[in-house]
Amino acid sequence: MSPHVTHLRVRYAETDQMGVVYYANYLVWMEVARVELCKVLGFNYRDMECHDGVLLAVIQAECRYRYPARFDDEVIIETSVSAATSRGVEFHYEMRLADGDRRLASGSTRHIFCNRQMEPVRLPEKYRPMFGLK
Amino acid sequence: MSPHVTHLRVRYAETDQMGVVYYANYLVWMEVARVELCKVLGFNYRDMECHDGVLLAVIQAECRYRYPARFDDEVIIETSVSAATSRGVEFHYEMRLADGDRRLASGSTRHIFCNRQMEPVRLPEKYRPMFGLK
Amino acid sequence: MSPHVTHLRVRYAETDQMGVVYYANYLVWMEVARVELCKVLGFNYRDMECHDGVLLAVIQAECRYRYPARFDDEVIIETSVSAATSRGVEFHYEMRLADGDRRLASGSTRHIFCNRQMEPVRLPEKYRPMFGLK
Amino acid sequence: MSPHVTHLRVRYAETDQMGVVYYANYLVWMEVARVELCKVLGFNYRDMECHDGVLLAVIQAECRYRYPARFDDEVIIETSVSAATSRGVEFHYEMRLADGDRRLASGSTRHIFCNRQMEPVRLPEKYRPMFGLK
Repeated sequence: MSPHVTHLRVRYAETDQMGVVYYANYLVWMEVARVELCKVLGFNYRDMECHDGVLLAVIQAECRYRYPARFDDEVIIETSVSAATSRGVEFHYEMRLADGDRRLASGSTRHIFCNRQMEPVRLPEKYRPMFGLK
Repeated sequence: MSPHVTHLRVRYAETDQMGVVYYANYLVWMEVARVELCKVLGFNYRDMECHDGVLLAVIQAECRYRYPARFDDEVIIETSVSAATSRGVEFHYEMRLADGDRRLASGSTRHIFCNRQMEPVRLPEKYRPMFGLK
Repeated sequence: MSPHVTHLRVRYAETDQMGVVYYANYLVWMEVARVELCKVLGFNYRDMECHDGVLLAVIQAECRYRYPARFDDEVIIETSVSAATSRGVEFHYEMRLADGDRRLASGSTRHIFCNRQMEPVRLPEKYRPMFGLK
Repeated sequence: MSPHVTHLRVRYAETDQMGVVYYANYLVWMEVARVELCKVLGFNYRDMECHDGVLLAVIQAECRYRYPARFDDEVIIETSVSAATSRGVEFHYEMRLADGDRRLASGSTRHIFCNRQMEPVRLPEKYRPMFGLK
């Protein structure tokens, strides 16, 4: 499966006094990209939380920063599922500038499926094919 | 009643590329100060939400910015209840630098009491005396 | 001049434990909408800051919250210049749900033009026609 | 050297609709803890940026999430310098609840010293002893 491509534009709020995007905001962008990818897979985050009480809790996040994004830059994020089981899923992210293709950052997040009490659960069967699981 | 005094230190994350605190963060500081004031009044936000299902939903917020706060500044917030009924409450905030006493900003927030379905409710009786209500 | 229309989708990061968008984030959305409007007016925020050293410093912000936005909602913001002089400018914002047209919030921000030392300046002449000024 | 200990209280703004702290905010907390540690080492972030034009640019961040922090929790962060050269520095963070000592998360950040043009530089000599460098 080819990666899902998300476009976003850097907000003023996302910069810091160094004149570049504050480092924690790349994790926010990963979430935006991940939600979009899940939708494309037929897996609606919002419905899964509301109707099935299944949450995707993050257990690890990692980001390597290569070049600073700046206010008003258009950023492209390529997101893919790098691993999946009925217990959890891992996403990989490549972020680059739309203009000139410069690499900004790459990262990954690992998640487990949880119920509302934040206890680990198996992904309901109906969602499994979306992640290529039986 | 004299205002409640909250101290906080400006985080790097709260600055923007102008080199000053991003304007929306003053509303975050108001929340920090409001939660502290509520505690002092004997009114625990967290318990009220968890045990009584009563939420304090904001219906208006306003801030006047007089002088920019910068990274690592110590900020003092004086918070007071400027109006209260069994339906809602209004807070007023004065923000200034600890060092030199310069005024940074002033603001207000208006809230109504809601249940979890976000429907207006009256404040449970046990909480009323805390706001000087019968 | 008809208002500029901005579309955005609510991020998970923008919600709080009440299950709705945290109140300070509406000011971030206003900034996103304001930057877009300025671009449409031919007035590039980023260039004005970089090349002319002119900043748009906020002196007041106000928001009335009518109905809570939730995760993954598509939000429409209509933004207009409600007042402008060579010293400053005021914007007005109307926010509503794309789906069903429900009003979410309305707000305004007032700004003055500043140099990098945060001292008030007059808007450079070349930018004035964009705000309908001579 | 024993780790530096930072205390902070979870803000409402830091929660998300899952009822727990949004994952990117742990990186904000790491920054707060890192700034405090630097001060204790005699190394003032703000002065270093303003007077020496030396910035600490992040090149990698990583966080493992073990247990969710919630609104109004008091969080303790133990921060230490895990590696340092004249080119860069690495910090390690252990986050736990003040009440009951439960581990929340652990993480690390790697940084390089940069000038205002975001080009790598060596740490000025006067700051080296603070990181145990000659």
